[in-house]
Amino acid sequence: MRPSHALLLSSLLFSAAAHADELRERANAVFKPIPAKVTEVRGKTVSENQALLGHKLWFDPRLSSSHIISCNSCHNLSIGGSDNVPTSIGHGWQKGPRNSPTVLNAVFNAAQFWDGRAKDLQEQAKGPVQASVEMNSTPERVVATLKSIPEYVAEFSKAFPNDEDPVSFDNMAYALEAFEVSLTTPNSPFDRFLKGEDKALDDQQKKGLALFMDVGCSACHSGVNLGGQSYFPFGVIKKPGAEILPTGDKGRFAVTNTANDEYVFRAAPLRNIALTPPYFHSGEVWELEQAVAIMGDSQLGRQLSEDEVGAITAFLHSLTGEQPQVAYPLLPASTASTPKPE
Amino acid sequence: MRPSHALLLSSLLFSAAAHADELRERANAVFKPIPAKVTEVRGKTVSENQALLGHKLWFDPRLSSSHIISCNSCHNLSIGGSDNVPTSIGHGWQKGPRNSPTVLNAVFNAAQFWDGRAKDLQEQAKGPVQASVEMNSTPERVVATLKSIPEYVAEFSKAFPNDEDPVSFDNMAYALEAFEVSLTTPNSPFDRFLKGEDKALDDQQKKGLALFMDVGCSACHSGVNLGGQSYFPFGVIKKPGAEILPTGDKGRFAVTNTANDEYVFRAAPLRNIALTPPYFHSGEVWELEQAVAIMGDSQLGRQLSEDEVGAITAFLHSLTGEQPQVAYPLLPASTASTPKPE
Repeated sequence: MRPSHALLLSSLLFSAAAHADELRERANAVFKPIPAKVTEVRGKTVSENQALLGHKLWFDPRLSSSHIISCNSCHNLSIGGSDNVPTSIGHGWQKGPRNSPTVLNAVFNAAQFWDGRAKDLQEQAKGPVQASVEMNSTPERVVATLKSIPEYVAEFSKAFPNDEDPVSFDNMAYALEAFEVSLTTPNSPFDRFLKGEDKALDDQQKKGLALFMDVGCSACHSGVNLGGQSYFPFGVIKKPGAEILPTGDKGRFAVTNTANDEYVFRAAPLRNIALTPPYFHSGEVWELEQAVAIMGDSQLGRQLSEDEVGAITAFLHSLTGEQPQVAYPLLPASTASTPKPE
Repeated sequence: MRPSHALLLSSLLFSAAAHADELRERANAVFKPIPAKVTEVRGKTVSENQALLGHKLWFDPRLSSSHIISCNSCHNLSIGGSDNVPTSIGHGWQKGPRNSPTVLNAVFNAAQFWDGRAKDLQEQAKGPVQASVEMNSTPERVVATLKSIPEYVAEFSKAFPNDEDPVSFDNMAYALEAFEVSLTTPNSPFDRFLKGEDKALDDQQKKGLALFMDVGCSACHSGVNLGGQSYFPFGVIKKPGAEILPTGDKGRFAVTNTANDEYVFRAAPLRNIALTPPYFHSGEVWELEQAVAIMGDSQLGRQLSEDEVGAITAFLHSLTGEQPQVAYPLLPASTASTPKPE
């Protein structure tokens, strides 16, 4: 290599590194990497027995009245913690009202559900079990089911050793939460970039990250989950069409009954977003590129160019982290007194 | 211990051991233990790539048109390889016509389905994927789905390196079979008894085993799977009621169109039977004791006493073996060209 070329190359490399450092500094002010492991439920260390019990409950279809729907049916850990259909199919093949959010990294959300109506994962877990369009069970039925299975009774006692009546609906939900906190996806290319690995993102992704901050996406999609922290109207600038924002679903309004909260939703967390189409609470958009363009238009009043959409989408692909590897558990057998499927 | 007592005890022990040896000899002439591991598909060694691919396909809900039903939905490996409901619930919440048989040890059956209409597990696997009341897909749709996912294309190439067009419906079914042959449950108490471990069965179970052979159950329920080998009319001696033997389902008659085959079914394999209620092709009997009593009555013309039913049931519980432990696989992501759920 001629000296002038070497000089040019080293100066380019230096400039690229400096540019990456600057980008990383800006990004670290807005986002946070996913920690290597979460072992606490709201400040309290999860016991191994609680997590093991939650692992079984997660996959147990007997939490539904039909005995064929488990938590994992709609939050499928083999495909990104969601079901990847527009809206979930539940009891009696009824379609749920909204797209199923991923359970992955849900522990980092400020509240659960698209409208934030559950303050934490324990409260969330009680919802689908009882919803008639989902698992269609009742707390009484769930407790009767669990108490009819001696192995579960023993496992609840071990998981909640200080409780007088360990087999309870509350504890079922707590055990599920204790399992769910482990469902995180660290070490995505984006996380590795945040921590100093320049080459974890390619140039297109770096450009996308810069755009994501420059055009304003990160105003709502920030923090460790790039979203999931607070509430915003869908269509701040311009309401999308009714196929994407159905008029009948007023979002957080149903929770707060406040006019300001009409068509307000929790900003979607964007971790692993490439794995969980279709998009939005209505689940009507299959292409990530289209979702990005719609967001630019409706939330930022900006017609993103094809180039910009491509770069932001490339960046969003860098949010796919290491998926949790779990065993498919062996569940304890029902007994004669276990309520029959309905 | 006084000498006379010691003598009595040793003579009792000797007699118990001699009795166990005799029982074992009789049993080994009729039944066979489950081998430690099956690594062949019909005489051909399964490759690791085939089994790994089959493991993913087994759990992949995209083999169904709705994208929410997988093989594992009705043959759930966490609860004995079946779904433990009377008849399976499939596409559109339609109920299947017969109780879902367990996949565990299915490799040892002479043919698959209650009426034996599939000669092997590869042929069987193609059925539910296409059945409109089950997964409701088509070979074309399945192949289009698999070909739209680059990771699957690569895995099929590795699993079937000599095929010109490795991603095929046939190969999907073959890979599923390659996974399913590993789903065996060796080392049940019964197997351990067959191999010489006297104490693997308690006295009640030994009495049940002797009765099982003496009253004639083992005439149909023999071999490694205690069934699954040949076909018999349900109600040889006395037809059970229509709730248990619905008149509309004539069993093997639909396969052979032979009058002799009316209400003929494959003798149910009894391995892990305690894990897979409800019983019979109609799935209308929840208690194993009741199923045993009905069999005595309808197949053998014998009113078994409560004591006899109890002993035979205790023996049947000894058929529960070590359940296969599998990982919950991570599936490759869909792409823009993957057919959408319907």
